[in-house]
Amino acid sequence: MTRAGILVTGNEVLSGAIADRNGPWLSERLRGHGVELAHTMVVADRPADLRAALEFLAREGIDLVITSGGLGPTADDLTAEVVGQFAGRELRLDAALEQRILAILLRNRAGWRSYSEEALRAGNRKQAIVPAGATILEPVGTAPGLIVQSEGPLVVVLPGPPSELRPMWATAAGTEPLSGLLARAGALEQRMLRLFGVPESEIALSLEAIERDGTALDRLEITTCLRRGEIEIATVFAPAARGDYDALVAGIRARHDDRLFSEDGASIDDQVAELLTGRTIAVAESCTGGLMAGRLTDRAGSSAYVLGGVVAYSNAAKTGFADVRPELIERYGAVSAEVAAALADGATARFGAQLGIGITGVAGPGGGSVDKPVGMVCLSVARLGGARIDRTVQLPGDRGTVRERTTTVTMHLLRRLLLTPEP
Amino acid sequence: MTRAGILVTGNEVLSGAIADRNGPWLSERLRGHGVELAHTMVVADRPADLRAALEFLAREGIDLVITSGGLGPTADDLTAEVVGQFAGRELRLDAALEQRILAILLRNRAGWRSYSEEALRAGNRKQAIVPAGATILEPVGTAPGLIVQSEGPLVVVLPGPPSELRPMWATAAGTEPLSGLLARAGALEQRMLRLFGVPESEIALSLEAIERDGTALDRLEITTCLRRGEIEIATVFAPAARGDYDALVAGIRARHDDRLFSEDGASIDDQVAELLTGRTIAVAESCTGGLMAGRLTDRAGSSAYVLGGVVAYSNAAKTGFADVRPELIERYGAVSAEVAAALADGATARFGAQLGIGITGVAGPGGGSVDKPVGMVCLSVARLGGARIDRTVQLPGDRGTVRERTTTVTMHLLRRLLLTPEP
Repeated sequence: MTRAGILVTGNEVLSGAIADRNGPWLSERLRGHGVELAHTMVVADRPADLRAALEFLAREGIDLVITSGGLGPTADDLTAEVVGQFAGRELRLDAALEQRILAILLRNRAGWRSYSEEALRAGNRKQAIVPAGATILEPVGTAPGLIVQSEGPLVVVLPGPPSELRPMWATAAGTEPLSGLLARAGALEQRMLRLFGVPESEIALSLEAIERDGTALDRLEITTCLRRGEIEIATVFAPAARGDYDALVAGIRARHDDRLFSEDGASIDDQVAELLTGRTIAVAESCTGGLMAGRLTDRAGSSAYVLGGVVAYSNAAKTGFADVRPELIERYGAVSAEVAAALADGATARFGAQLGIGITGVAGPGGGSVDKPVGMVCLSVARLGGARIDRTVQLPGDRGTVRERTTTVTMHLLRRLLLTPEP
Repeated sequence: MTRAGILVTGNEVLSGAIADRNGPWLSERLRGHGVELAHTMVVADRPADLRAALEFLAREGIDLVITSGGLGPTADDLTAEVVGQFAGRELRLDAALEQRILAILLRNRAGWRSYSEEALRAGNRKQAIVPAGATILEPVGTAPGLIVQSEGPLVVVLPGPPSELRPMWATAAGTEPLSGLLARAGALEQRMLRLFGVPESEIALSLEAIERDGTALDRLEITTCLRRGEIEIATVFAPAARGDYDALVAGIRARHDDRLFSEDGASIDDQVAELLTGRTIAVAESCTGGLMAGRLTDRAGSSAYVLGGVVAYSNAAKTGFADVRPELIERYGAVSAEVAAALADGATARFGAQLGIGITGVAGPGGGSVDKPVGMVCLSVARLGGARIDRTVQLPGDRGTVRERTTTVTMHLLRRLLLTPEP
């Protein structure tokens, strides 16, 4: 088994000021190549800590180390230097590389009219000082990457910004000696099942039952994970265990057919986008404040089916923009199944859409009552003059969680409505 | 200096299926206590890797290790066991703890009507098996936490869900022996400056100049970070270096007064929320598809000033919901400064608000042209019958980045408008 470690550098990541997006992304790439990830380590821009992390991974017998970050022009960018020392390589200025970086810097500089050239040039030379014998990966931004062979692991040095790291990883994966290492690892299969509306403990029980029924689950690496109100069952396996995976899927399907909504990795957003093709939809939302329309318009091409939306935060807006009758609000309250249904119908009518979504609820932290506690949300999805689903749910968590979870539940109601045959 | 390591366990985190929110959060808490974080490590649910990570941190002379995750009821939850072995402690069933966990499980179970009790009981006993002599931290969810003294570091074992980990950390911090360790560490000061509209390289130049002018920046731990289009300068320092920090702030203020928008840690969202107090606002947005209204309504109490919004995705919606004259769209195009201004005015008028926001642009990846490329966004913020700011910007990045960055630029325009004295 080929094993890897990821080394994410940077005070700003370690301190939590920015979230690490490279570790998770690289992790997925490695899995695709059949490489087992042993550790992801986040270290500050302190040479001793970075060196200690490299030596730990070497001692653990790791074959491949990927570093991210610390390739910038400033004094706290130390990765190339520390990796060079770790691999026992002298550091040398690559004059041709220096010229190529300078050309990029001067081109970029055009965007900032009023600032000095001094700062841009200062770091240029530093970025071109690389360990002897390293394979250079050409800059995507301004920082070059490196592939450095040590006596222990092969070290691939990549820049921190995800927009630079991702294309450079693709280049590195096709470049010796990394390409050879990856080819020897052999690919693993990755699959994803998604369920909605079932507790995680029940999935654990199903997995035990499936194993008792004779499926060799030990040949599958199964991770179940509760995410945004959905259960994800991620499975990694060697091609030879394909039959075991099929048996797992059959077992989950048999036990949770009504809750299993995706077997091919498609997200609920993918499914709803596909089901909306050739239709039109509009939204009238209160407590989600625009997030429902924001989620529907998240993907390219959504303008073909999203006509628009109304954030009907005030009662006047509910009446003025979505034709909710004031008597309805007076009688049942702004948060009520009746008003949610009226919002859905109002959205449909006012935008001239075929489908409408209505959302009203108590996102909190204030505004709750005994009858209508924080987390109570009334939802309605309706087809113009046709089928509809009205649902009142009680969602856990803080304001942000309630708002986000509301959009997830709505996506599932919408999927169900769209799968209902039209008369 | 007291040094800490964070150990995040779980296949689902290492694999990238879910993002680690505990490392960053704990990192911030540690900094507040004056503890230097050396490493955050993410390891899979493999006992050998978890053990290796603990031993690495012990070898590095780390004083405090905080683990997150691996305390659940299923077979892959191994943290208590591995930490017990690492600390040389026998594992024992705590019968009283077992009963307390069972009571929680049965109470929670009420929520899931139709599922079996078997799965819920199965893991109960396992969760009550703890290292001898460990301090028990009572469950917030169902998993108890632990404080375990080893021959090397003190190990604090916390559950993975952030909603459980956070309150349990607060409990742990007040419990011996952790409370004693934190008290000895002594607090550090943390400050944040925020700037908008200046390149990061220029900040590096300013820091060098401030140092040349005689400020001892080596007594400050400064991290600059580009986040969502803003520059953050985070600084950590011992109380004795307060004067140096004040000199740093004065230096940044002298050089970037017009770009420095926050000296007290307040975000642009905080500032806009405060400036909107006592006013009313409405939004008419196209390419952001609801995200602008979603951002404004993100915080509790926003219903006091956000009247609502319109997601005017189609031209018909721009006309029908925000009174944009069709001739304007025909003459200048849907993405134009003229239409943005009309959207802002339409939002103000239609919602009866004092302030309006209009947004129209090309979020991409399709829909761009030579005149109006992907990333071009026209923004308008306007006071009813008063001052206004109209701005057309060219934003970099993919669809998601353009949409998010648009909301940030708009927040800054709104701040500037709100700071403009009313006649």
